Amino acid sequence: MKLPTGYTYAAIYAGIRKQEKDDLALIVSTPPAVAAAVFTRNMVQAAPVRLARQNFASSKGRVAAVLINAGNANCATRTGARAALLSTRAAAKALGCRADHVLPCSTGVIGVELDPNLLTNSLTPLVAKLSPDAFEDVANAIMTTDTRQKIAWEEVPCEGGVVQVVGMTKGSGMIQPNMATMLAFVMTDAVVKTDDLDGMLERAVERSFHSLTVDGETSTNDTTLLLANGASGVKPRGRERDALSDAVARVMESLARQIAADGEGARKLIVIRAAGFRNRKEAARIARAVANSPLVKTAIAGSDANWGRILAAAGYSGAVFDPADIDIRFQQTLVCRKGQAADYDEPALKAKLDASEVEIEILHRREGKGEARFFTCDLTEGYIQINGSYRT
Amino acid sequence: MKLPTGYTYAAIYAGIRKQEKDDLALIVSTPPAVAAAVFTRNMVQAAPVRLARQNFASSKGRVAAVLINAGNANCATRTGARAALLSTRAAAKALGCRADHVLPCSTGVIGVELDPNLLTNSLTPLVAKLSPDAFEDVANAIMTTDTRQKIAWEEVPCEGGVVQVVGMTKGSGMIQPNMATMLAFVMTDAVVKTDDLDGMLERAVERSFHSLTVDGETSTNDTTLLLANGASGVKPRGRERDALSDAVARVMESLARQIAADGEGARKLIVIRAAGFRNRKEAARIARAVANSPLVKTAIAGSDANWGRILAAAGYSGAVFDPADIDIRFQQTLVCRKGQAADYDEPALKAKLDASEVEIEILHRREGKGEARFFTCDLTEGYIQINGSYRT
Repeated sequence: MKLPTGYTYAAIYAGIRKQEKDDLALIVSTPPAVAAAVFTRNMVQAAPVRLARQNFASSKGRVAAVLINAGNANCATRTGARAALLSTRAAAKALGCRADHVLPCSTGVIGVELDPNLLTNSLTPLVAKLSPDAFEDVANAIMTTDTRQKIAWEEVPCEGGVVQVVGMTKGSGMIQPNMATMLAFVMTDAVVKTDDLDGMLERAVERSFHSLTVDGETSTNDTTLLLANGASGVKPRGRERDALSDAVARVMESLARQIAADGEGARKLIVIRAAGFRNRKEAARIARAVANSPLVKTAIAGSDANWGRILAAAGYSGAVFDPADIDIRFQQTLVCRKGQAADYDEPALKAKLDASEVEIEILHRREGKGEARFFTCDLTEGYIQINGSYRT
Repeated sequence: MKLPTGYTYAAIYAGIRKQEKDDLALIVSTPPAVAAAVFTRNMVQAAPVRLARQNFASSKGRVAAVLINAGNANCATRTGARAALLSTRAAAKALGCRADHVLPCSTGVIGVELDPNLLTNSLTPLVAKLSPDAFEDVANAIMTTDTRQKIAWEEVPCEGGVVQVVGMTKGSGMIQPNMATMLAFVMTDAVVKTDDLDGMLERAVERSFHSLTVDGETSTNDTTLLLANGASGVKPRGRERDALSDAVARVMESLARQIAADGEGARKLIVIRAAGFRNRKEAARIARAVANSPLVKTAIAGSDANWGRILAAAGYSGAVFDPADIDIRFQQTLVCRKGQAADYDEPALKAKLDASEVEIEILHRREGKGEARFFTCDLTEGYIQINGSYRT
């Protein structure tokens, strides 16, 4: 992995988590980056989300630093707004930048007070640790119930030189599509205009984080940021710009897949593909309903090709179709033809379903070119165990 | 329990289940009853649902018999329509009634062929067993993953005599609100006009089966029937009719609670109450989102008063509110006041959450009189175990 130029990273243990593991992290861009952002659409928004929106508006999308803490969502707290404000101001002071150029992000438990001093006291040592190589330290520090770090990268050769795109994300539970789920930070050193960057983020989010579900829950803290600091001096044009947009989309798709594969308790990544429907919206309705179905997800946990549950979920998705037009495939094996059981080798398919990645396709035989994909995971006892006692 | 007059019941093992346990059942009304019905809204509908709708339309809501099989949903099958048609015709012949006066219902696995002969060959012995006392035999025969029978009854004293209302239901998984979930049969011997009966069913369903979720799944086979055969000769009028409507509503609420309490893997019934909102619709949005939240349901399984998850679910429900106006109570204990942590005794509350029935209240402090209740259950490892290998 080659990191984009102009970014530095640092992580530290600030005492927010009970366990001694980095829980406060900083990403700094020099010069301040042009940024595009998507925030949660939950009515209940954590204090850092509210302040990040406000700063983003007042700075017109310029970002010099992102300050992230894990272990406490700083949501539904008395001290929340104060903690977010004091910590970003302290960061701005330590970095010598404008306060509204710092965006705060938090992730962890909701409704537990966060002591602002834990953040502000750690800022000087945190800034002192900033390094261009500490990218993975940040990726590790922002994890909560994640079992592994989630990073992805691409490079785009342009006439003026090569530009880099790297991304990191965290998220494992409270993951629901279409609401800018979890925390994700994608950085490039290309020179990109705000409008182009907005378009790239919108396109990439639609097919990655908006097409992702672990448990159908939408968090109060979700934030996705795409930063372009131009430090490479390379300005992609025309096809190069399209290539950069593709690279951003691939990085984000990889991150979304990694979240699904590391969903709480998950043993398998499940990719749902709906194709042949009237339009993308209809296909997406079906893919989403199937991806959110606990009966489908438990069946896959048991390597059971229970296609009746797929058909039932498609049926209540809101999409309009005749069941007699539907084929269903698991791992390329046709299990349902024209809405009825196909002939297939059940033990052979069961073995294929033991794989760590399972593909389920719902295909309309004759309607159109509407296609959509969704990323999810199987539902196991692990999800119950993790979430039955998260606070204790 | 006093059973209404004019109904007979029978159940038999027809060889549909692998396990030798009654799987075919009959409810007969003499004379044919006036009926009200609600069917699943899933786009994929089982053959018996399609035929029941058709018969219901052609008979103008007259029902002489309901023929129910468990162990096979008769959905997405080649032989499905034929099995439903031949079995209801055979039942009509054996009973000497019109074929469209017989409604078929099926429940069980989807996509497995159902041999029509299994049904038709069993009809003569089934009809021979009809008895006014075999009500519970039918309630037992229709169970699938249910661990116990679900019945309820009420009586309504009227000037002309006492009328009885009894109900039975089955359902444990693939249970989702607002779609006439599962199979339920409610019988009364009162004399009731079709229009009045429709009104009674609509009112009762709204606050029972439409306010119920186990796993957010909508089945392909859901059918709820309310029969009134008039065999008591008593015609409730005015306040008596209201009392009958209340009795029907109480029977159906009891059945809905029993389904939630016996949800797959469930150890606890959870009653979600949202109150103080602008109108019932807003309150119902919140109650439903909280009832469907796997994070809330796993927290209750662990007796964890994790109110942050309640607030987050309310936030993504689609309802519009300011979090600062929200109070949350678990088992009457205030845990969140004005959107922030309240002071409460955590160990004492944890003990209260070990109860077999848990109440969660989401209260708007000042908006209106909109109120709604939802019935659900906790989410445990049992749900995963049951559904990871349902077909095998």
